[in-house]
Amino acid sequence: MSLQDSLFMVIEGRQQPMHVAGLHIYTPPAGAGEDHVQQIYQGWRKYVKAEKPFSQRPVLSMGQWGWEEDADFDVDHHLSHLALPRPGRIRELLMLVSRLHGALMDRSRPLWELHLIEGLADGRFALYVKIHHALIDGVTGIRLVASSLSHDPAEIKPPLWAQKHSQAAASRPARSLAAKVVDAVLTGRKIIPGLGSGLFDLLRTANPDDALALPFQAPPSLFNVGISGSRRFVAQSYSLTRMREIGKATGATVNDVTLAVCAGALRKYLMARDNLPEKPLIAMVPVSLHGETRKGGNQVAMMLANLATDVADPLDRLQRIVASTAAAKARLSGMVRVEKIAHAAMMLAPMLPDMITGRARKRPAFNLIISNVPGPTGTLYLNGARLDEAYPVSIPADFLALNITVSGYGDRLGFGFTACRRVVPALQRMVDHLDEAFAELESALAATRPRPAPKRTRRPVAGSALPETGTATPVDVGQVLRRRKLRKTPPS
Amino acid sequence: MSLQDSLFMVIEGRQQPMHVAGLHIYTPPAGAGEDHVQQIYQGWRKYVKAEKPFSQRPVLSMGQWGWEEDADFDVDHHLSHLALPRPGRIRELLMLVSRLHGALMDRSRPLWELHLIEGLADGRFALYVKIHHALIDGVTGIRLVASSLSHDPAEIKPPLWAQKHSQAAASRPARSLAAKVVDAVLTGRKIIPGLGSGLFDLLRTANPDDALALPFQAPPSLFNVGISGSRRFVAQSYSLTRMREIGKATGATVNDVTLAVCAGALRKYLMARDNLPEKPLIAMVPVSLHGETRKGGNQVAMMLANLATDVADPLDRLQRIVASTAAAKARLSGMVRVEKIAHAAMMLAPMLPDMITGRARKRPAFNLIISNVPGPTGTLYLNGARLDEAYPVSIPADFLALNITVSGYGDRLGFGFTACRRVVPALQRMVDHLDEAFAELESALAATRPRPAPKRTRRPVAGSALPETGTATPVDVGQVLRRRKLRKTPPS
Repeated sequence: MSLQDSLFMVIEGRQQPMHVAGLHIYTPPAGAGEDHVQQIYQGWRKYVKAEKPFSQRPVLSMGQWGWEEDADFDVDHHLSHLALPRPGRIRELLMLVSRLHGALMDRSRPLWELHLIEGLADGRFALYVKIHHALIDGVTGIRLVASSLSHDPAEIKPPLWAQKHSQAAASRPARSLAAKVVDAVLTGRKIIPGLGSGLFDLLRTANPDDALALPFQAPPSLFNVGISGSRRFVAQSYSLTRMREIGKATGATVNDVTLAVCAGALRKYLMARDNLPEKPLIAMVPVSLHGETRKGGNQVAMMLANLATDVADPLDRLQRIVASTAAAKARLSGMVRVEKIAHAAMMLAPMLPDMITGRARKRPAFNLIISNVPGPTGTLYLNGARLDEAYPVSIPADFLALNITVSGYGDRLGFGFTACRRVVPALQRMVDHLDEAFAELESALAATRPRPAPKRTRRPVAGSALPETGTATPVDVGQVLRRRKLRKTPPS
Repeated sequence: MSLQDSLFMVIEGRQQPMHVAGLHIYTPPAGAGEDHVQQIYQGWRKYVKAEKPFSQRPVLSMGQWGWEEDADFDVDHHLSHLALPRPGRIRELLMLVSRLHGALMDRSRPLWELHLIEGLADGRFALYVKIHHALIDGVTGIRLVASSLSHDPAEIKPPLWAQKHSQAAASRPARSLAAKVVDAVLTGRKIIPGLGSGLFDLLRTANPDDALALPFQAPPSLFNVGISGSRRFVAQSYSLTRMREIGKATGATVNDVTLAVCAGALRKYLMARDNLPEKPLIAMVPVSLHGETRKGGNQVAMMLANLATDVADPLDRLQRIVASTAAAKARLSGMVRVEKIAHAAMMLAPMLPDMITGRARKRPAFNLIISNVPGPTGTLYLNGARLDEAYPVSIPADFLALNITVSGYGDRLGFGFTACRRVVPALQRMVDHLDEAFAELESALAATRPRPAPKRTRRPVAGSALPETGTATPVDVGQVLRRRKLRKTPPS
């Protein structure tokens, strides 16, 4: 086990499980019987042998974590067949997934679980796949799960754990620099000369641009406190076409629109709890710098986005966000070394808050992580059942009690909110607020009556790397806004 | 929190959760709709305030565990509504309960969970109640849960956590001696003069009776190894009438018959795995010395029973067990001080194996705990639904990987087997073996064609304290056996 992977074992506690998960919803094939899920389950139970990495369990030897083959691999430990209680709505599914996601995995076994869940009232079924972060990172996990499915509805594949995975897919990408940074930070040694000052530069240099969000500018918020071991997960998906329309009209990327609707929902949630900070929330956004989806995960840097949650007007808020991400991208693209350090800092994200515990409540580095994980392309099938919806379920951490991860599939972008259910109560409201934020943004745009935007061919976001390139500059938003202001201001 | 209760917090690890549970199966009232369980669930969710001890969460302050009111009590964390997948057999229920029992509870909350489980194919539903041992001991827990139900099918009561519990029921019985013993053992101090030698006496004195099982006579077995965090629970109930018939014919108590069928099942299980020790397994059996059910739990001593798993003949095995428990009871009844020390030793049971880890694999103190927890009397109802079956779910521990706990309800004695599913594989076989052991014992008895036993009035075991008094002496078994031997031996 690499040093970095082993850190996910070391920092895991009963209040902070370090596993990621995916939630899939499927439509059974035409003519499937009531026992469709049971048949999948019984078929899968016969795969009593696992392939790497699903065959390996962690071992602690001489203080070092490593992997070894599980000689007593027990498929019934890893695979379960569950059902939803009446009335079998998405609400019941999300409550069950919340419970499953809150449970630590047994470290005497390979660190993954797969739950087939039947009983949705509309006849669909769900799959919840949970994998420890030490075994696999989220991006690789989503890719592996997707590759275990088929584009052919007639194909029957072995289940995830019984498929042979390429060495590249089965092992985490090399991140030697990150590992060194982790090592340096944790042990206090300076393996990389000048690292400390470099990190300090990134965090502390004078702000060259009002739009650029810097760490430790984030206000204290209810999301930035210690967490408990219980989890709440809610999810919702939106049409990417709808999001692209907003982007076209404002010159924003889909990623900017994602941040904007999240910001709108966060603002509403915090206002409803009488807890909106005066200063804007700052989101840490992992970004893929190279846009190479198939290598996704190993060229990731971070940027800090100002979510403008202090701004009431949805279009003003979007403009601030676009300006912030544009400035962050410009800064990243110009600074190779900083990019690498930012990469390491991103990788350290779950640990950072612990390291700065002393000041975290008063001045967090950022308020939450909003991550876009590349989703699969094309329609996927599980033994003939069509994958309809896919949501990522991620890791809240101490002082980062809410995580938002989105992932595209087909024309939908799935939003997954994963939180500590104790310090982020009534998380289900967030989905209502997300709906409202979308509607407000669209209403505000409609009120500006923009000219029809010129037709542009865009590659779909689902499966593509972020941030998107080739989109219009933030200036467009300004134009829209100026146009709107003209309309609002009565002619003098 | 008392010192002893806090020990259950201290010794709990992710591989050794220290919670006990009860599994109930109910028949809905006549005319109940398909949404019967949903209605109970929705009704219970409205009880957003908990009473002591269900309102209290553990706090660690200055290294000492204590209790405090949970200011953010969240009923949705503690109460869940679950369902069984198809085909909805008892098998699916037991698999779900196994998973629920393997999950650690969130220590930032009051340490209990209540799961309403629908979807049994026969229309019944289940209730799984999980309570941390630091909050409540198993006996008190079963009593509290029973007292939350009603003898009146027309009565609607608030749920367990919202009922006011008497101080006596809500707090653990005082066990100052036990606490002192724990303290003395753990810290090495000698608070009770002569304790060390007294304990040593109990464990080490020369064996005055061949039948008496002494600690550290137990052979190594597959049950006496370190455990993992995953659990398997299986259960089965048997007619107490049937067990009493066996007892009548052999002069054994119901408790002896319980031990005998467990011994038969254990022997078959170990033989099937080619792992039967040559020497007999030794069970630790907690016994109530005073027979006062309502105070059950606070006057408990332990006895060690020779399970005679090396004996192939079921009646010979029963005879050995009866002789062993008779000798143990005689010894206990004659030794007041030893009784108290034994009490403490019993309370230490989950800790003992850890303390003697060095030798546990080679020479365990005993092989498993077989416990009979007094059950409720009379038929009980939950909002009109009749309680049909009740099973205790207990705690496996390192080097005690299997726990058997039985509890009576009505004419049934419910057997609950709780084990680490990694080191005690295929636990479901144990239930088949239990069936076989029963059948063999009855066949062997039938072959002896005993005279009809004289009619005796017995109080029911369910709800009574063990060991039973006033039953025939072990000599009866010998008579039966001699009679049988006469029949078997051809007349010369």
